[in-house]
Amino acid sequence: MISKKMENMVANSSAIRAMFEEGNRLAGIYGAENVYDFSLGNPNVPAPEAVKTAIRELLDEENPVVLHGYTNSNAGYEDVRQAVADSVNEKFGTNFGSKNITMTVGAAGGLNVILKSLLNPGDEVIAFAPYFGEYRSYTNNYDGVLVEISPNTGTFQPKLEEFEEKITAKTKAVIVNTPNNPTGVVYSEETIKRMAAIMEAKQKEFGTEIYLISDEPYRELAYDGVEVPYLTKYYANTIVGYSYSKSLSLPGERIGYLVIPDEAADSEKLISAANVATRILGFVNAPTLQQKVVKKCLGEKTDISYYNRNRETLYNGLKDLGFECIKPEGAFYLFVKSPVADEKEFCAAAKKYNILIVPGSSFACPGYVRLAYCVSYETIVNSLPKFAELAAEYK
Amino acid sequence: MISKKMENMVANSSAIRAMFEEGNRLAGIYGAENVYDFSLGNPNVPAPEAVKTAIRELLDEENPVVLHGYTNSNAGYEDVRQAVADSVNEKFGTNFGSKNITMTVGAAGGLNVILKSLLNPGDEVIAFAPYFGEYRSYTNNYDGVLVEISPNTGTFQPKLEEFEEKITAKTKAVIVNTPNNPTGVVYSEETIKRMAAIMEAKQKEFGTEIYLISDEPYRELAYDGVEVPYLTKYYANTIVGYSYSKSLSLPGERIGYLVIPDEAADSEKLISAANVATRILGFVNAPTLQQKVVKKCLGEKTDISYYNRNRETLYNGLKDLGFECIKPEGAFYLFVKSPVADEKEFCAAAKKYNILIVPGSSFACPGYVRLAYCVSYETIVNSLPKFAELAAEYK
Repeated sequence: MISKKMENMVANSSAIRAMFEEGNRLAGIYGAENVYDFSLGNPNVPAPEAVKTAIRELLDEENPVVLHGYTNSNAGYEDVRQAVADSVNEKFGTNFGSKNITMTVGAAGGLNVILKSLLNPGDEVIAFAPYFGEYRSYTNNYDGVLVEISPNTGTFQPKLEEFEEKITAKTKAVIVNTPNNPTGVVYSEETIKRMAAIMEAKQKEFGTEIYLISDEPYRELAYDGVEVPYLTKYYANTIVGYSYSKSLSLPGERIGYLVIPDEAADSEKLISAANVATRILGFVNAPTLQQKVVKKCLGEKTDISYYNRNRETLYNGLKDLGFECIKPEGAFYLFVKSPVADEKEFCAAAKKYNILIVPGSSFACPGYVRLAYCVSYETIVNSLPKFAELAAEYK
Repeated sequence: MISKKMENMVANSSAIRAMFEEGNRLAGIYGAENVYDFSLGNPNVPAPEAVKTAIRELLDEENPVVLHGYTNSNAGYEDVRQAVADSVNEKFGTNFGSKNITMTVGAAGGLNVILKSLLNPGDEVIAFAPYFGEYRSYTNNYDGVLVEISPNTGTFQPKLEEFEEKITAKTKAVIVNTPNNPTGVVYSEETIKRMAAIMEAKQKEFGTEIYLISDEPYRELAYDGVEVPYLTKYYANTIVGYSYSKSLSLPGERIGYLVIPDEAADSEKLISAANVATRILGFVNAPTLQQKVVKKCLGEKTDISYYNRNRETLYNGLKDLGFECIKPEGAFYLFVKSPVADEKEFCAAAKKYNILIVPGSSFACPGYVRLAYCVSYETIVNSLPKFAELAAEYK
């Protein structure tokens, strides 16, 4: 009786659920401390103390009718949007006003809002493999067609020649995610400039507008001082989708924003459409208390030194054991080459050592596995002898 | 460049925005206390003090990694869902478990989740005029077709003969909203039993399943001890969409739930589909802090005596002035007959007296206007002389 579109998705979701339940089952048998669960991108560094302080202050200072009420605009509180714009402008030398900011129910909410606003049935959305599997669902929600650029498994930078070939008159949007889930790769300024030039040329060739959607939940998680270019500065038709899920460790609270710059084609209409989409998709507005919280915490950062120690320890540990992996510059994932072609077989083998990892097929990149290292340092350290046993199987 | 589906909606939304801005403009000129804004369903009774206490306790008691983290299931925290099920069972003599509860981003989020889960393109969704205009958008989001039952302007109870005639083999869902926005009418047990019998017979006739979706944000706002029947007890294929927006005055926080009973056809698949829909529509999970807050506040109620005084004062005041109106038994709206056929003309006339009201056309019921009386008592009292001047125009 359920929707046909949902039938397959429910089947897939049962697989994910099965994995999750397997983790619980193993924890029940061996104890949680003896299960090495690298499957979920759920931050383990707690929200900064400032979040707690902000909530307490808001309860004392604000009229509850306003604090918990509908916002006047579906885009969010005017003061919050202005503060977010100011903060982005200060960090990146941009020139946004409150009207360019739409507060969203996380980045996932923001991506749905902008795709709902843009897509007609059959419109194409390009994503670079490996990519977050939900992009396919989000595109499918609005009857768009996801077009995949094959992975460059040498560097996991985007394959720009293939990109150029696959842009058509139907290409409405391109999604990039840098720092990247699942590889941790950051796109360089050079890459961004080349991408922008390709899109500019294709827009002229086809007489179309192609929107670059920058999905940035990991922007703040960048290591070794690597620079993550701010994409609106390189390409006019750029929309930014941001989330505080990782930068403030608030993934469950569902708070983020979209930036729709004045420079984007049809900007005013697009801003109105995002407003309407926020309402009719049932978000209505981003959760109000959390809107006010992020305003108070714009200067706060999560403790990335924790993730960095995990990154170094796990990366070096796995390299020493002979695993192949690009050293990630951002996010909290390692994307490791499976020692056997069928990486699902490898995931199953890992499970024998209570190691839970996600097959690359979920990111349109079979032959690899994703490890989320947003776990305790002890989990990393204690998992390494288990990885050694696992590696020995493939010697 | 925006989606064609969105073009009209953006135009409509500009009209709503214009009204809102007009309110601000009038407040700027005459002072907010001299503007009688009955246009918005934004509760003016603050959240119970227990909400504040609950948040403070949660900040002290809970591990922030859990309190602000993704929930293990997209349906929400297991303990919250169990507590919600227990509370519903206690109030209504039902027998739900945690698996029957999906926590949602308000009722609007819940309705989108269930319609996404159910609808194939071309499936029909029946709504009884006057109805909340968003039902049309929600249905349209999933390429469903909204089928309207014309209003019974005598009692504003549903026209069941027309309902029976308009059910087809393509009818997938029926949305009811009782207590009703915009009329405040509560459907009697007799009405519900007759509706259920009609749907049962039609399911047999067509060999289909027809889901009854009960949109219940106003369940707790019922006056004079009127009983609001719990619909799962009358019809097996019932889905309940609940919201804490009005019952705890938390509309901006976006917290509610769906009930999908075991008795509903294909229940297990539908629960999985709702889980997946929550994820892929970008909600991911209902805001986590607020999930825990409602668990702590399941016994709390908003101060309906405040709304009741408004109801009595405004209803009696308007009746005395000669306006025609059904006395509402629930919610916080009056649905008043316009003294002229074109109610938009009446709304424009009201604006001259700084009275802001919404045309019934927005609820598929022209010739009427909606007044939201979730405003201060002073606004009600002070508006009455203005209504008197307005009434005099039509004598």
